[in-house]
Amino acid sequence: MPNSAQSSQPVSLMTDHYEFTMVSAALSDGTAERPCVFEVFARRLPTGRRYGVVAGIGRLAELLPGFRFSEADVEFLRSNGVVDEATARWLADYRFGGDIDCYNEGELFFPGSPILTVSGTFAECVLLETLILSVLNHDCAIAAGAARMVTAARGRPLIEMGSRRTHEDAAMASARAAYLAGFTTTSNLAAGRRYGIPTAGTSAHAFTLLHNDEQAAFASQVAKLGVDTTLLVDTYDITQGIRNAVAAAGTRLWAIRIDSGDLDVMAHHSRQLLDSLGATDTKIVVSGDLDEYAIAALAAAPVDIYGAGTAVVTGSGAPTANLVYKLVEVDGSPVVKRSENKATVGGRKTAVRRHKPTGTVVEEVVVSQGTPEPQPGDRPLQRALVRGGELVADLPGLDDSRELLRQGLIAIPWEGLKLSPGDPSVPVVMLS
Amino acid sequence: MPNSAQSSQPVSLMTDHYEFTMVSAALSDGTAERPCVFEVFARRLPTGRRYGVVAGIGRLAELLPGFRFSEADVEFLRSNGVVDEATARWLADYRFGGDIDCYNEGELFFPGSPILTVSGTFAECVLLETLILSVLNHDCAIAAGAARMVTAARGRPLIEMGSRRTHEDAAMASARAAYLAGFTTTSNLAAGRRYGIPTAGTSAHAFTLLHNDEQAAFASQVAKLGVDTTLLVDTYDITQGIRNAVAAAGTRLWAIRIDSGDLDVMAHHSRQLLDSLGATDTKIVVSGDLDEYAIAALAAAPVDIYGAGTAVVTGSGAPTANLVYKLVEVDGSPVVKRSENKATVGGRKTAVRRHKPTGTVVEEVVVSQGTPEPQPGDRPLQRALVRGGELVADLPGLDDSRELLRQGLIAIPWEGLKLSPGDPSVPVVMLS
Repeated sequence: MPNSAQSSQPVSLMTDHYEFTMVSAALSDGTAERPCVFEVFARRLPTGRRYGVVAGIGRLAELLPGFRFSEADVEFLRSNGVVDEATARWLADYRFGGDIDCYNEGELFFPGSPILTVSGTFAECVLLETLILSVLNHDCAIAAGAARMVTAARGRPLIEMGSRRTHEDAAMASARAAYLAGFTTTSNLAAGRRYGIPTAGTSAHAFTLLHNDEQAAFASQVAKLGVDTTLLVDTYDITQGIRNAVAAAGTRLWAIRIDSGDLDVMAHHSRQLLDSLGATDTKIVVSGDLDEYAIAALAAAPVDIYGAGTAVVTGSGAPTANLVYKLVEVDGSPVVKRSENKATVGGRKTAVRRHKPTGTVVEEVVVSQGTPEPQPGDRPLQRALVRGGELVADLPGLDDSRELLRQGLIAIPWEGLKLSPGDPSVPVVMLS
Repeated sequence: MPNSAQSSQPVSLMTDHYEFTMVSAALSDGTAERPCVFEVFARRLPTGRRYGVVAGIGRLAELLPGFRFSEADVEFLRSNGVVDEATARWLADYRFGGDIDCYNEGELFFPGSPILTVSGTFAECVLLETLILSVLNHDCAIAAGAARMVTAARGRPLIEMGSRRTHEDAAMASARAAYLAGFTTTSNLAAGRRYGIPTAGTSAHAFTLLHNDEQAAFASQVAKLGVDTTLLVDTYDITQGIRNAVAAAGTRLWAIRIDSGDLDVMAHHSRQLLDSLGATDTKIVVSGDLDEYAIAALAAAPVDIYGAGTAVVTGSGAPTANLVYKLVEVDGSPVVKRSENKATVGGRKTAVRRHKPTGTVVEEVVVSQGTPEPQPGDRPLQRALVRGGELVADLPGLDDSRELLRQGLIAIPWEGLKLSPGDPSVPVVMLS
C-alpha cells in the first residue's frame, strides 16, 4: 500500500456554509464590523440529567490558532460561489482579534449557564460558531456521561475502552473527556500520547483463539508481560479459565478480566474461586456494555476495576450536549430572538456560583449586562481564554480540571449525584 | 493568536493499547506469523432497526495507506513500555501486506453479514482492529439513521446540518454518510471540499438580530444573494416575517425557512400566506430537531425541503453500529469463542443475497469456508478492497454507493422500510 499523505482539512472549513453567506452580506451592508457578543449555553440538559460538565476548552485552545484561511481555502470558497471577491479578500486576512471568556474545564453547568462568551466584530465572531459548538457539544456530552459512571463506580478505577465505537478522531477526544471526568486510564494510545493520559490494555479473545489452547495463550502472555498483567478468562469457560490463569501466573497474578455473562454472578464466583486457589490479591476487571446503571448494580459485587466503552463514547444516551451559540448583544444592546417558543435573555452575562457556609452550592446567579451583588461564598465562574485574539497563558491542565470536577461534584446538593432522572441539581437565577 | 501547527496523530496510534501487547507476546512465542482471518460483522442491529447500511469503506481506503509507524511513533510506544525492543523494530517496518474484502458502501447488511474480511498474519491484521471498527461503527451508524430519514421524506430533499452537534472531524464523516444515504446537500464546507458533496446555507437568526430590524436583514441578504435565496422568517413573528420576506424579495423568492414552532401548523399557515401574497412558487424549508419520525409526521404538510441536524449526526438514537472485529480462522481452521453467551460461527464466510424473479430479496446466504450453491437471482456481496497490501483500483465513488443503497432499499421486502421497531427485514442463513 503506498503511504499516501492524508488530505486533512483546515478547521476553518469545518464551518457551516451559512456563516460565510452571512459574512458576505454583512460585509456588503456595513454591519460586519458591529461589536457583538455571542454566548454558548444549554437551554436544557439532556432529559433527566442533573448537571452538565464543561469539557473541550483545552482542545478549543489548541484549534483556534489554526482558524485561518490559506490561499487554497479561499479559492475553494470563491470558486464554489460560497463567497464573493470582497469576502474572499477579507478571509485571506482573517484572524480572530476579539476576546473569549469561558468556564474552566471540569466546571459543572446548568441550563442557562453562559459557559463561553465570544466578543468582537460580528464577522469575526460568527465564523467560529460551528467549530466551538462541535468541540464543546461533543466533549461536554462525553464528560457528563463519564462523570455519572465515575460516581456509580464509588472510587473503583475505570478504564475507558470505547475507541472502536466512535469516529477515530472523536475517540481521542472521548478518552480525554473521560479522563477529565475521573476515568483512570484509556485504551487509546493516540490520546495517551497527545494528552498524557495513562493507557492500559493486555489482550483480547483473539489472542487466546490464536493459540492452540488457553494454557498456551496465558503462558505466552505471562512470559512476555510477567504476572503483573490481566488475563482474559472468558474465551471458553470462566471456571477453567481462572484455573488456567492461576496455573500460568501463580497466585501473584495481578488481575483477571471477565467480558461476558452476568457480571455480578461471575464476579462473585470468580472471587471465590480465586481465593480458594490462593490468589486472594488478584483483582477482577469486568467489561462488556457497562454504563452507569450497570456499574451501580455491581456496587456490592467483588469487582475491582470497570472497563467501559460504548456508553462512554456515546455520552450514555446523550451523545450531544444541547449547547447553542447565540448572538446576545449588538453595539452594547441586548438582542433576543422572540419567535414562537424560544425565549432567551439577551445581553452579556456574568455568572457566580453561590454556596452555603458549609460549601454546598445554593444557586448559580447569572446577571445580564451587570455583575451579581457580591455575597460571601460566591465563586466567579468565568475566566479569560482569549484576549485581543491571543490565548492567555495560564490555562489549567487536564489534571486541574479533573480535580475541579471532583470538588464540584462534592459541592452540589446530594440530589445531583443520583443517577435517576431529575431536575438540574442547581437552579440558575437569571437577572436582567 | 499565533498560527501554531496542529499536532495531529497518526492513524496507527488510534489503536487500543492491547493490540500492541498482543503483538509483542505473539512475536515472542512464534504465533505472530500464523495466517489468520478476521471478520467485521454485527451480532445484532440497533434495537428495532430493520437494516444496516455499509458506509465508511471509502474513508478506510483513504486512511489505511497511512497506517505506518514513524520513528517518533515507535519511540513513544517503546519508551512508554507499550512494546519491547523486538516489537519496536517490527513496527518500524510494519506495512499491512494482506488482503481485505468488503461489502460495497451503500450495501445493506443484517446480523451476521460479513461486511469486511481481513486476512494476513495475526500480527499485521490485529493491529487494524480499532481503526477499522472506529470508521465503520461511526459511518454505518450515521448512514443507517440518515437512510430512514430519506425514506420518511418520500422524495423531498434533505439538508444535513448537524456539524455543530458532533465532534468536528466526525461532522465531516457524518456529512459524507448522510449524502451516501440520500441527503441532498450538507452545511459542512470541509465535507463539501473533501468529498465533493454539494453544500447549502444562507443565514441564521444572528443575521437578523444583527440588523436594526428584520426588513433591513432581509434587504441585505437579497441584495447580496439575489431572490434565489432562503429567508429565515421566525426570528420575531412568522406571519410578519413572511410578509417582510416577500416585500424584500418579491414573489419570486426561492424559499423561506422555519426553525421553530409546530412545523405542521406553521407549514400550512406559511403556504397559505405565501400563496395569498402571490409567492406561489416560494418553497418552504423546515428545520429544528427533525428525526425520521418528525419528518414522517410532516408528509401531508406543504413542506418542500427538510433540514436535519442532531438526529443525523447521532445516528438517530443509535450512535454506533454494534460492529465487532473477530478472529474467525487460524491456519485455515475455524476458531470460535465459546464463553457463556456469545456463540458465533467460525471460518471465513462468503455471502450472496438471494432474490425472487421480481427482484425482491428473499434472504442472505452466508457460508463458512465455502461458497453458496449458485441459484438464479444470487448477487455476490463481497469485493476485493486490498490485495497484498495494495488498494485495488476500481473503488466505487460516493454517487455509485448512493445509487446502490437506493436500489437496495427498493429490493428489500416492504416491511423493511417501516420506521417502527421490527425484526431485520432480510434473514441471514448461516451455513457451515
